[in-house]
Amino acid sequence: MKLIRLFSIAALFVVILRLPALAADALPSWNDGRAKQSIVASVEKVTKEGSPDFVPVAERIATFDNDGTLWAEQPIYFQLAFALDRVKALAPQHPEWKDKEPFASLLKGDVKGALAGGEPAIFQIVMATHAGMTTAEFEQIVKDWIATAKHPTTKRFYTEMVYQPMLELLVYLRANGFKTFIVSGGGIEFMRPWTEKAYGIPPEQVVGSSIKTKFELRDGKPVLVRLAELNFIDDKTGKPVGINQHIGRRPIFAFGNSDGDQQMLEWTAAGSGTRFMGLVHHTDADREWAYDRKSHIGTLDKALDEANAKGWTVVDMKKDWKVIFPFEK
Amino acid sequence: MKLIRLFSIAALFVVILRLPALAADALPSWNDGRAKQSIVASVEKVTKEGSPDFVPVAERIATFDNDGTLWAEQPIYFQLAFALDRVKALAPQHPEWKDKEPFASLLKGDVKGALAGGEPAIFQIVMATHAGMTTAEFEQIVKDWIATAKHPTTKRFYTEMVYQPMLELLVYLRANGFKTFIVSGGGIEFMRPWTEKAYGIPPEQVVGSSIKTKFELRDGKPVLVRLAELNFIDDKTGKPVGINQHIGRRPIFAFGNSDGDQQMLEWTAAGSGTRFMGLVHHTDADREWAYDRKSHIGTLDKALDEANAKGWTVVDMKKDWKVIFPFEK
Repeated sequence: MKLIRLFSIAALFVVILRLPALAADALPSWNDGRAKQSIVASVEKVTKEGSPDFVPVAERIATFDNDGTLWAEQPIYFQLAFALDRVKALAPQHPEWKDKEPFASLLKGDVKGALAGGEPAIFQIVMATHAGMTTAEFEQIVKDWIATAKHPTTKRFYTEMVYQPMLELLVYLRANGFKTFIVSGGGIEFMRPWTEKAYGIPPEQVVGSSIKTKFELRDGKPVLVRLAELNFIDDKTGKPVGINQHIGRRPIFAFGNSDGDQQMLEWTAAGSGTRFMGLVHHTDADREWAYDRKSHIGTLDKALDEANAKGWTVVDMKKDWKVIFPFEK
Repeated sequence: MKLIRLFSIAALFVVILRLPALAADALPSWNDGRAKQSIVASVEKVTKEGSPDFVPVAERIATFDNDGTLWAEQPIYFQLAFALDRVKALAPQHPEWKDKEPFASLLKGDVKGALAGGEPAIFQIVMATHAGMTTAEFEQIVKDWIATAKHPTTKRFYTEMVYQPMLELLVYLRANGFKTFIVSGGGIEFMRPWTEKAYGIPPEQVVGSSIKTKFELRDGKPVLVRLAELNFIDDKTGKPVGINQHIGRRPIFAFGNSDGDQQMLEWTAAGSGTRFMGLVHHTDADREWAYDRKSHIGTLDKALDEANAKGWTVVDMKKDWKVIFPFEK
């Protein structure tokens, strides 16, 4: 009996002793290494009251790119997959598309051929699928698609292809008083219907590209109609502009993965005090994809050079992440 | 002794009995009446768990116009007073203004003459005073002005000319889980430097009109330069557009004071469930100003008709507000 009792007490001690360590590891999917250490060091510095690096809660703004930073972006941006699916769905209402590029190629299943038209082709596809309806109608279209569409290679829902280590990071930051924002080149109204569920980020904390909308009364009921006219491109030099426009404060923590995020990181770095600038480097061809300087999607070239030159944190996906997607657990 | 004791106990009872009533009156500067009752009824409905009108905290969005709703707007919009002060301050750097309208009239103290040029004149004044500097420089200019400039008739700081009953309403809504936003025709970057202190509304919850900004590296340091080009007018039909763009959710509670707020109130009203639509009617020529249908500033005409027709709440400033400005207390 005495031995058992001693054993229980010892076990209890072990449990008690391990508790702080367990509680402290809010980032279990991150391997111990420079990336994780730099994140934790930065957060601990700005949250330590009385320290010269302390930042009041109201100013703890963290901004995250979405494509390739919070969820995957290969083999094509997921919003482009959405647009292509919409072209197919809308084709019966557009018999003229059979003979009109880029739609004709798309409808024959020739995505490469369709995109050969470059930006004007993409613009046509986006406007044909993203404009002409009310904001409420578009929201429903996105909700229906995100609830049913599957990724072409993994056959997973797109919202399953979010990065587990980044989900943990978002929770960790919020637990430390940060307000977490998305600042993405993707469409603001394409993201908002699902970001709260996927990331815990509410619509009012999503910044993205947009087309213009117009207020109208239809049968006496007010609607916002989505127009086939660009409003704002939230990419590259547009990201600091979008951050200033929507948030009105400079982030102290920012994460991206491509040259499209370079100016957001520069803007973040240019403030005073402790700041965290991070890039996800896609280095894992087995578990995810490996690409950087020469990729057309998520090109990471100049931003990688600047990160290396300035000591920003570069996450080596293969080495730093124990798990990539939540479904691996 | 016994009598005193009895008295003390009785007094204690009175205190205890009055406590709930005191705690419940989060709106002490509002007279009891239909306006106050409709506010409280609406908030109690949407916050009562299990009720069919219950709204989850995340969706409790409240939007407020600024000029004439949260602070005064007579005899001229305060941002216009700022612009006029800036013209005077900048005049030494612009000798050409002496012979150029609308600046020439302004510099002679003839505000009416300067504004006789209508919208193009105002546009010129705004761009000459709001563009051409970085966002950080403009923020400092606004901070300096708001800390020193005085209202022409009351000789108070402009941030003293906020409405005490509305300050109480903002606090009351936030205590009930609402997120409070400003949705103003005023300049977004003119408001953000002082709204947190004046109203408890942080920069990221301020929606307003804006000019375009451009990201640049100056001596290797990133800046956002304010361009003499309109970006967005957050007024009338622009308010629902701005709400959708910035917040991405429909408000359930909205307050304005002029025809510029009509579409925001319509947009708010068009959602399902319990909603509150309110207008401040300036009816107190003694304590504030009395104006509505025929005023050039804060015209309240069509929106007043719609409010009356649809049963929206119209605050009669003279009857509904015990105190108008905090300095009266």
